[in-house]
Amino acid sequence: MWCQSCKEEYEEEDAGTCKECYEEASETEEELKREIDDLRSRLLFLRLPYPTLDAASAPHSDLLLHAIPSCSSSGAGGDADAARTPDTPAVPAHRVILASRSPVFRAMLESEMEERSGIIKIYDVSYDVLRAFVHYMYTAEALLDEQMASDLLVLAEKYEVKHLKTFCEKFITSKVNNENAIAHYAFAHRHSAKQLLEASLSVLMDNMSTLADREEYKELVDKDPRLVVEIYEAYLNRQVNTAAGKDTDCSSRK
Amino acid sequence: MWCQSCKEEYEEEDAGTCKECYEEASETEEELKREIDDLRSRLLFLRLPYPTLDAASAPHSDLLLHAIPSCSSSGAGGDADAARTPDTPAVPAHRVILASRSPVFRAMLESEMEERSGIIKIYDVSYDVLRAFVHYMYTAEALLDEQMASDLLVLAEKYEVKHLKTFCEKFITSKVNNENAIAHYAFAHRHSAKQLLEASLSVLMDNMSTLADREEYKELVDKDPRLVVEIYEAYLNRQVNTAAGKDTDCSSRK
Repeated sequence: MWCQSCKEEYEEEDAGTCKECYEEASETEEELKREIDDLRSRLLFLRLPYPTLDAASAPHSDLLLHAIPSCSSSGAGGDADAARTPDTPAVPAHRVILASRSPVFRAMLESEMEERSGIIKIYDVSYDVLRAFVHYMYTAEALLDEQMASDLLVLAEKYEVKHLKTFCEKFITSKVNNENAIAHYAFAHRHSAKQLLEASLSVLMDNMSTLADREEYKELVDKDPRLVVEIYEAYLNRQVNTAAGKDTDCSSRK
Repeated sequence: MWCQSCKEEYEEEDAGTCKECYEEASETEEELKREIDDLRSRLLFLRLPYPTLDAASAPHSDLLLHAIPSCSSSGAGGDADAARTPDTPAVPAHRVILASRSPVFRAMLESEMEERSGIIKIYDVSYDVLRAFVHYMYTAEALLDEQMASDLLVLAEKYEVKHLKTFCEKFITSKVNNENAIAHYAFAHRHSAKQLLEASLSVLMDNMSTLADREEYKELVDKDPRLVVEIYEAYLNRQVNTAAGKDTDCSSRK
């Protein structure tokens, strides 16, 4: 027989589908591709140009965000807030965009207190992360590495931008390995990132024999022993379940 | 043989694909579906809530659009523009959204002349169409019937919102039949809607024998005979091509 797809000959034991199903599947594929094209074009339409400080390209920006990093180098005494004044440019934005993407911004902008000034300080964040955060609000796109994904996840959680949090969590989850699992496990715990928590816990449980030798393990025992307990509990739980599974397996064979 | 997809038996002459191609196609389908899910979730994120006049839900709207229908019922003399003052509510919007979707609005808002007032009059359009137009700017979605699609296409062309124009044109094209082909053909001509023009012309050429009996035909001959000439030219052209095709066909058979 000849395969209608790859045009190669095949034997009966290598048969896949009948002609009707093949044709149906091809049609489905075409339909899905058309839907993807349609969705992509709608996405392009809905994307907004990222605002810049250049007046010509962002004439209607009505907010300026200032990134205030957590450890400011200017350690002068006196007014603590003034000492943390940033030396990076402001990040322009629009009230309507921030309010529609983040319930926290919406509440903040609706209360119209300090925000009347059109200036909002975003604490404990670098200029680059704030820019990437605002960029995501306009485009639903971000260029991630592990550090950026973690920083953005924290900001997304703080401002309740669920879509961005999920996006970052997926990215970090794809990077979990034995080297970074403890750090990611603790991070996931701090920021209620369930998918990441499960992935890193799974890697930790697969490598229990070397867990206690790790520097990060000792640090976690010192800092947050409760989290370490949870690793052991999950491990024990898995062992019990596996044993129970084997038992059922054996008894069903009898 | 058994089809892996529908699980039914089939004969050799009904064979579709080999196993390998079937598995590959299934994987591709899964991937496409995942991509669709991802695109849909990004679309949902980028959609903006449609602004309302209710201050609580649209506190940051910075523009009001007034629909001025083409034939106002208030026929009082004096200031023509005043006579066309609408009695429908204003449609709230945001400068940043309109400017990012429409180059015409962008130029208008950047010139900052009458728009400083935050009020823009949109002429020759009903309140419902203007609302649907603004709604599309926020959501990339519209509920269409033929009339709404035509009205929105006109507005989309005027304000250069290409995505909406294509969206409406596709919808109208799907509705072309022998009854409405002349009207759609003339409409497509007026608004440079190439896809619709070709579809309606094709229907007209398939029904040439009854064309001249139609009321709309006679109207078009009166109003814009040049367009009627183009129908005949296209028809003749098709006849010549078909004849040439037959000739080639015959000669190649010899």
